[in-house]
Amino acid sequence: MKLIHMTKNLKQRIMKIKVIAFDVDGVMTNGSINLDEKGQEIKMFNVQDGLGIAVLRKAGLKTAIITARSSGCVAARALDLKIDKVYQDAYPKSAAFGDLLKNFNVSPDEVCFVGDDLPDIPVLKQAGFAVAVANASSDAKQYAHYVTKKSGGNGAVREVVELILKTQSRWKTVLETFV
Amino acid sequence: MKLIHMTKNLKQRIMKIKVIAFDVDGVMTNGSINLDEKGQEIKMFNVQDGLGIAVLRKAGLKTAIITARSSGCVAARALDLKIDKVYQDAYPKSAAFGDLLKNFNVSPDEVCFVGDDLPDIPVLKQAGFAVAVANASSDAKQYAHYVTKKSGGNGAVREVVELILKTQSRWKTVLETFV
Amino acid sequence: MKLIHMTKNLKQRIMKIKVIAFDVDGVMTNGSINLDEKGQEIKMFNVQDGLGIAVLRKAGLKTAIITARSSGCVAARALDLKIDKVYQDAYPKSAAFGDLLKNFNVSPDEVCFVGDDLPDIPVLKQAGFAVAVANASSDAKQYAHYVTKKSGGNGAVREVVELILKTQSRWKTVLETFV
Amino acid sequence: MKLIHMTKNLKQRIMKIKVIAFDVDGVMTNGSINLDEKGQEIKMFNVQDGLGIAVLRKAGLKTAIITARSSGCVAARALDLKIDKVYQDAYPKSAAFGDLLKNFNVSPDEVCFVGDDLPDIPVLKQAGFAVAVANASSDAKQYAHYVTKKSGGNGAVREVVELILKTQSRWKTVLETFV
Repeated sequence: MKLIHMTKNLKQRIMKIKVIAFDVDGVMTNGSINLDEKGQEIKMFNVQDGLGIAVLRKAGLKTAIITARSSGCVAARALDLKIDKVYQDAYPKSAAFGDLLKNFNVSPDEVCFVGDDLPDIPVLKQAGFAVAVANASSDAKQYAHYVTKKSGGNGAVREVVELILKTQSRWKTVLETFV
Repeated sequence: MKLIHMTKNLKQRIMKIKVIAFDVDGVMTNGSINLDEKGQEIKMFNVQDGLGIAVLRKAGLKTAIITARSSGCVAARALDLKIDKVYQDAYPKSAAFGDLLKNFNVSPDEVCFVGDDLPDIPVLKQAGFAVAVANASSDAKQYAHYVTKKSGGNGAVREVVELILKTQSRWKTVLETFV
Repeated sequence: MKLIHMTKNLKQRIMKIKVIAFDVDGVMTNGSINLDEKGQEIKMFNVQDGLGIAVLRKAGLKTAIITARSSGCVAARALDLKIDKVYQDAYPKSAAFGDLLKNFNVSPDEVCFVGDDLPDIPVLKQAGFAVAVANASSDAKQYAHYVTKKSGGNGAVREVVELILKTQSRWKTVLETFV
Repeated sequence: MKLIHMTKNLKQRIMKIKVIAFDVDGVMTNGSINLDEKGQEIKMFNVQDGLGIAVLRKAGLKTAIITARSSGCVAARALDLKIDKVYQDAYPKSAAFGDLLKNFNVSPDEVCFVGDDLPDIPVLKQAGFAVAVANASSDAKQYAHYVTKKSGGNGAVREVVELILKTQSRWKTVLETFV
């Protein structure tokens, strides 16, 4: 496969995307599971990722979270970022993905999913635009159409947001609202 | 543009600075948004940045914070560092910047602002000395007169402090009070 | 010693492994000891390591923790990952290792131990497959059959899990349950 | 100055050391000041540094902390590591250093001090063996006899401990108690 074909193919995939769903640990964070003495968790999100998600909404795209774990940290972050749909305790993730399709009334090729490990593979296999982060396990990367340059918690989400909005020629409009 | 001209121009900009204002997330921190199960935040500042800000005060310059988010972490850090003026929930940031000019009775070219992302652009456009940190988004960097070598939370603030005080020939005096 | 011999020898060691025991600080975490004002601890584990340990169980291997320190963080993480046996306050660690052999009814050459520092040496000397993480002290590395490429808290545990399961030809079966 | 002379000089300095005093932020931690919404702090120490300090005690050397800040985190860590003398809120640090000399009945050339920034300079100037960590400010490094390869919170303290104990031919004995 030549790079130019790959690029063309990627562009076609990205042009169709209406919903972007993210795994949490290792994607919206660097994969660190921080526990206090009582087992309560602290999650480390990223401020530029957050702005990216806010910008997706401004641009009219829908956002979702699909995570196999569950914590108040995710609920708080999702509320702050006004994420449209949050699936916690989602195992297997394909069930949540099925519900997501109904909820947003979209087909799989209209969804981008960003993951990092084995439980993400069933969704990566279905999503129209499957993304693995730089720090994803090698097995997860096998099922991705695109691997981010930045790692989870360090800008991977923002990179995907900009890639989609620039490919869809929506970034410039967003940028103008700030400038 | 030749480096020597750039330097000359930068020096002229820096010589006028009387007030230095900082964004928080990604500038005074590495951009990590750390949330516990109840959505309470923990921010990660930097000790050498803190000394830099204390030194700015000793040298007679004024300091401010302009952040679009809001948390007790920032209030605590600002109190500890005796920052002169704190704007939280500042959106758009240009409004806070306008108030800052009145508050310190200065013109825009007497203010340095350090930011990292899109919401900082309106202020970067106005500030006499606009600084983007190494980890700033590429769009924010377009509006900066200077991009730091160090990243936010890892010495970017200190780098700006030393650059300004050394350019204004005030660093040596500060250093002598320690040595 | 030639590499091919080394590999053969390593393979023979790994083929026998039935139990995998981990040190905590510096192995399941990056070695950071995070204390709040009351001395309560927060430990930073890794999500991909966690999946690796879950996968070990699925594949029929037993898991254990041997740490010289003690905290609720470890108890919470061990519960979450259903680790079979947890030794906290284990000093010297060789005593815990002796108990572990009885508890799982295995011989030392059926146990893999992963450590990073001096208190781990007595167990590294006994374990059939002794592993030091990339960030281990140079003295601890002297007693290891294998040094991980990844560091503690950043995938070292996962690397050991995949190395063992792939060598024992069990990884493919595990992977299929996800794919 | 030739390296061999430098080494000889360093060795002579190190041979005399009986007390080792550490700054906290940037030396025993990576310099991150972590604040929650109420301004309560979390400090991030290092497990291998901790073992190094325990080993210093075993080897008969005395240990101290001299920090300009104050927090329960430091008190908790010092208690855990049985540090002989803790100076918090120490400003200027030279006063604490004077008290330390009396307390341990030693002369300045029998003390090693490890620091990272301007407030450490007065003590670095007096200490028989003055050490700056890799992440120290350039001004602090000017006053150091030795700059560590590792940075604060990432093994700098352990590096100093091993350098001193190996130079004093005490490391082997310590190591044997573990092996």
